[in-house]
Amino acid sequence: MQKPPKKIDHIGIAVRSIEEHLPFYENVLGLELLKMEEVKAQKVKVAFIAIGDSKLELLEPLDSSSPVAKFIEKNGEGIHHVALGVANIEERLREIRNEGIQTLNDKPVKGAGGADVAFLHPASTGRVLFEFCEKK
Amino acid sequence: MQKPPKKIDHIGIAVRSIEEHLPFYENVLGLELLKMEEVKAQKVKVAFIAIGDSKLELLEPLDSSSPVAKFIEKNGEGIHHVALGVANIEERLREIRNEGIQTLNDKPVKGAGGADVAFLHPASTGRVLFEFCEKK
Repeated sequence: MQKPPKKIDHIGIAVRSIEEHLPFYENVLGLELLKMEEVKAQKVKVAFIAIGDSKLELLEPLDSSSPVAKFIEKNGEGIHHVALGVANIEERLREIRNEGIQTLNDKPVKGAGGADVAFLHPASTGRVLFEFCEKK
Repeated sequence: MQKPPKKIDHIGIAVRSIEEHLPFYENVLGLELLKMEEVKAQKVKVAFIAIGDSKLELLEPLDSSSPVAKFIEKNGEGIHHVALGVANIEERLREIRNEGIQTLNDKPVKGAGGADVAFLHPASTGRVLFEFCEKK
């Protein structure tokens, strides 16, 4: 890859209730809540928690049709994905497809904070759901 | 917590074979392999891959009695833990126990790179296996 990912942008963690889990991150670990927002396209509410140059992203499904609700139903709560910060996401997607990596998104979609995001297929990555994430 | 974790030190990823998965990280993503070592106490071979201020840690069991072998048997390959970089790990463990958080290690044990590490009980953290990790 011409321009490798520069950092772990965030780790997405699927939870049934942000309200239930936030006290662990804020009060026990002493980390800072940056913001909360709803991402209607993914049917989730998200809470971003700052840690160093990265973030932890709590993902709460807005309803039972949310992909995160289905993840929790199948796997229980826990780590959902790892987002890698990249530049020129469309170029990066072309590059990895040329290497035979499958992606879940043909083109980038809008994620939290207005970022352009796309997921790599876990079958191509050793069962880790990696996201490419470009903040403009 | 008096001194919150400063960063994501690394994300541990359980794999059956480092050799099989390393090309994805090195050749497809273009990330740099920092080092490989065996951690006899955990019965794993580990490969550290640099990304920004953090690392990805591929964990390959040395034999079937390794905790990572048991993880893979139960869950398949995939993300195993998230390590948070802390200072004064023994103080941090006392603090979180005072908040009612259970830990898997009474005291820190030696991890890869000679770090002092201890795991938090997933039942206390919303099913995320967090590790505290102090590099001296």
